[in-house]
Amino acid sequence: MNAEIIPVGNELISGSVVDTNSSFLAERLLSIGIEVTRITSVGDNELDITDSLKGALKRSEVVFVTGGLGPTPDDITSEVLAKALKRKLVFNESALDWVKGLFKKIGREMPPNNEKQALIPEGAELIINTIGTAFGFFIREKDKLIFVMPGVPRELVKMTDESILPILLKEKGEGFHFKTITLKVFGLGESRIAELIKDIVDKYENVKIAFLPNYPEENIKITAKGLDYKETSAIASKVGEEITDLLGDYIFGRDNQTLESVVGDFLRENGDTISVAESCTGGLISHRLTNIPGSSDYMKRGIVAYSNQAKTDLLNIPASLIDEFGAVSTEVAEKMAQRARELGNTTLGLAVTGIAGPGGGTPDKPVGFVFISLANTKETIVENYNFRGDRSRIRLATAQAALDLLRRYYLK
Amino acid sequence: MNAEIIPVGNELISGSVVDTNSSFLAERLLSIGIEVTRITSVGDNELDITDSLKGALKRSEVVFVTGGLGPTPDDITSEVLAKALKRKLVFNESALDWVKGLFKKIGREMPPNNEKQALIPEGAELIINTIGTAFGFFIREKDKLIFVMPGVPRELVKMTDESILPILLKEKGEGFHFKTITLKVFGLGESRIAELIKDIVDKYENVKIAFLPNYPEENIKITAKGLDYKETSAIASKVGEEITDLLGDYIFGRDNQTLESVVGDFLRENGDTISVAESCTGGLISHRLTNIPGSSDYMKRGIVAYSNQAKTDLLNIPASLIDEFGAVSTEVAEKMAQRARELGNTTLGLAVTGIAGPGGGTPDKPVGFVFISLANTKETIVENYNFRGDRSRIRLATAQAALDLLRRYYLK
Repeated sequence: MNAEIIPVGNELISGSVVDTNSSFLAERLLSIGIEVTRITSVGDNELDITDSLKGALKRSEVVFVTGGLGPTPDDITSEVLAKALKRKLVFNESALDWVKGLFKKIGREMPPNNEKQALIPEGAELIINTIGTAFGFFIREKDKLIFVMPGVPRELVKMTDESILPILLKEKGEGFHFKTITLKVFGLGESRIAELIKDIVDKYENVKIAFLPNYPEENIKITAKGLDYKETSAIASKVGEEITDLLGDYIFGRDNQTLESVVGDFLRENGDTISVAESCTGGLISHRLTNIPGSSDYMKRGIVAYSNQAKTDLLNIPASLIDEFGAVSTEVAEKMAQRARELGNTTLGLAVTGIAGPGGGTPDKPVGFVFISLANTKETIVENYNFRGDRSRIRLATAQAALDLLRRYYLK
Repeated sequence: MNAEIIPVGNELISGSVVDTNSSFLAERLLSIGIEVTRITSVGDNELDITDSLKGALKRSEVVFVTGGLGPTPDDITSEVLAKALKRKLVFNESALDWVKGLFKKIGREMPPNNEKQALIPEGAELIINTIGTAFGFFIREKDKLIFVMPGVPRELVKMTDESILPILLKEKGEGFHFKTITLKVFGLGESRIAELIKDIVDKYENVKIAFLPNYPEENIKITAKGLDYKETSAIASKVGEEITDLLGDYIFGRDNQTLESVVGDFLRENGDTISVAESCTGGLISHRLTNIPGSSDYMKRGIVAYSNQAKTDLLNIPASLIDEFGAVSTEVAEKMAQRARELGNTTLGLAVTGIAGPGGGTPDKPVGFVFISLANTKETIVENYNFRGDRSRIRLATAQAALDLLRRYYLK
């Protein structure tokens, strides 16, 4: 079963909005064995929507049209689809009641604009939107299926998981099984990874291996395809293990793991608690650690000591130490990690100090020059890095390297 | 002049990677008056690349093909294009020398894989990539132009600005002028904005107004089109003013402004300095404030006081106050803002305390219940919010609302 996606909206082809829906939808479809072969983004324009729909219906069994279902005048998807499929546009009363109910719940009258959203092509089956006012629907057109969904990402996500996938699974019956494993890498570039694992890439015929840069990480996606689910899963696992053997601890996690979730698990399993002192990352390390629900069990406090004065006041870093070695130095980084740990009364202290730019660089300590330090009750380690890129990239890389230093501490 | 984009890569249609290149490219092209009408993402597959290229060449004057130029075996774009256009694939010696030089600079031998990247279709003109090993090139095919660029976002960005736009401007000569203004809104939903400004949307024939949700903000994009640049700009400005009159201070900025840049300008202009104390946002407010180069002039320190103990230790919040009113309360929020200000010796203190979830909610104080407080030397204000959504959305909304409270403080 092949599918195509037609995202509709001027905002998509004018560059105002990045289309995150299609990649989400494609991944979910792949997980049930439906491969997306093409994604055609067009504007809110009758000719382009019609032409793309007709092309997609020729090539693929399932077509998704997303966006253009809102209350504003530029939302024409339902109207154009009805016309293209030679169907009438009809009022769906239960849709209308539902929208009115939503507005009532928040104590407002339904604006007249929203009435339009209850118009869907004749013969289409309504798909309820539990968190917004735009409905989805699906149409059987000969032996093809057309799904239409709102373009608001969280509405599309919810509708896909709650309604679309169950419908498709029922329609699909038997077929190929797919198993996907994503390995997450930090510290090796794409070219180097490709070299290291090229024998594995060549060895398995029914396994696709893709490289997905996601700065500052690299992801390796393994997709195995087969007739038997158990066997397909076993092959994917085997390839995952072979790659892991080659790349070793450059791999920090897989699938839904993030560096902060991996580090969080280590902290929790080891009964550790942590305090963080940040300079150039400005709070990003604390923010990432606290992304994880329940992180308050181990993440006790964060200090953003952006100025020298703040380093002295908040962390008791002697002004004389900063004067002697500079705020960006081994000595200050170590002291920041130690003081963060002591003052926070935690088992660990993690600190960064560096130059994020664009200003502040010197020949000795250029923009991107960073120290990262980790202290426990017995010792303090410190590493020096030299990141490239703009302010944003340097801050991202620094936070990543700091969390990775913490991860590697647990690997020893 | 119309353009189409064909992003190539299995990672794009399998859902592993979100295509950010196309929206960037579309926006840049629109800025020089070239409208993108379609974006067709396909896999690393000869048939699909060829079919999309032929379709695009029929409809549009300029076609961009991005991705699939890397050193790995799945990178087949150059080969397929050469075949589709009936051209030979030839070695470009200066491209090869350039790549070898890059590897030499970092003290490594060029891996044999990378040699392949110097192969381009006969008659194509090379476009140098100053930050990566994959080249771009462009081909004149009858009266059409085909541009081919690497898919790595920062390489594509640099190549677009440094090479592609100058070439296109030279090719284009005269035509329509476009002027785009983006207004950034916080605190009003799309439906409500559409109602408020619907008369303006209807009034101007050559002006497109698009709504672009970018949680937790809403952006309004105004694009005016005309034969005269000055006149076109004047119309865009006029529409911008009319919308601003209607939406008032819900509009916090425009174009490249961010809420943190707007707030940063206010802080700087007023000679203020700020300390931030965060609980549920875990460092996000500090991180956003310090996104701005030079923010160390006003952003003095951040405290992430995740635990009650940290609130007492770092901010001298009396344990009795937390016991009496709870950590998420007007009283604790106010005290956090005041203490942050006093201890940081800054003119302002900004604090948030709330329940990000998924755990920790109670009937009285459910998940999403948040207090935000701002203190200056004379008074302390505090606001209570009740955000909806998951942990991530609640954290994003809280940080946004805190920065917006600070912005509104300056509007009084």
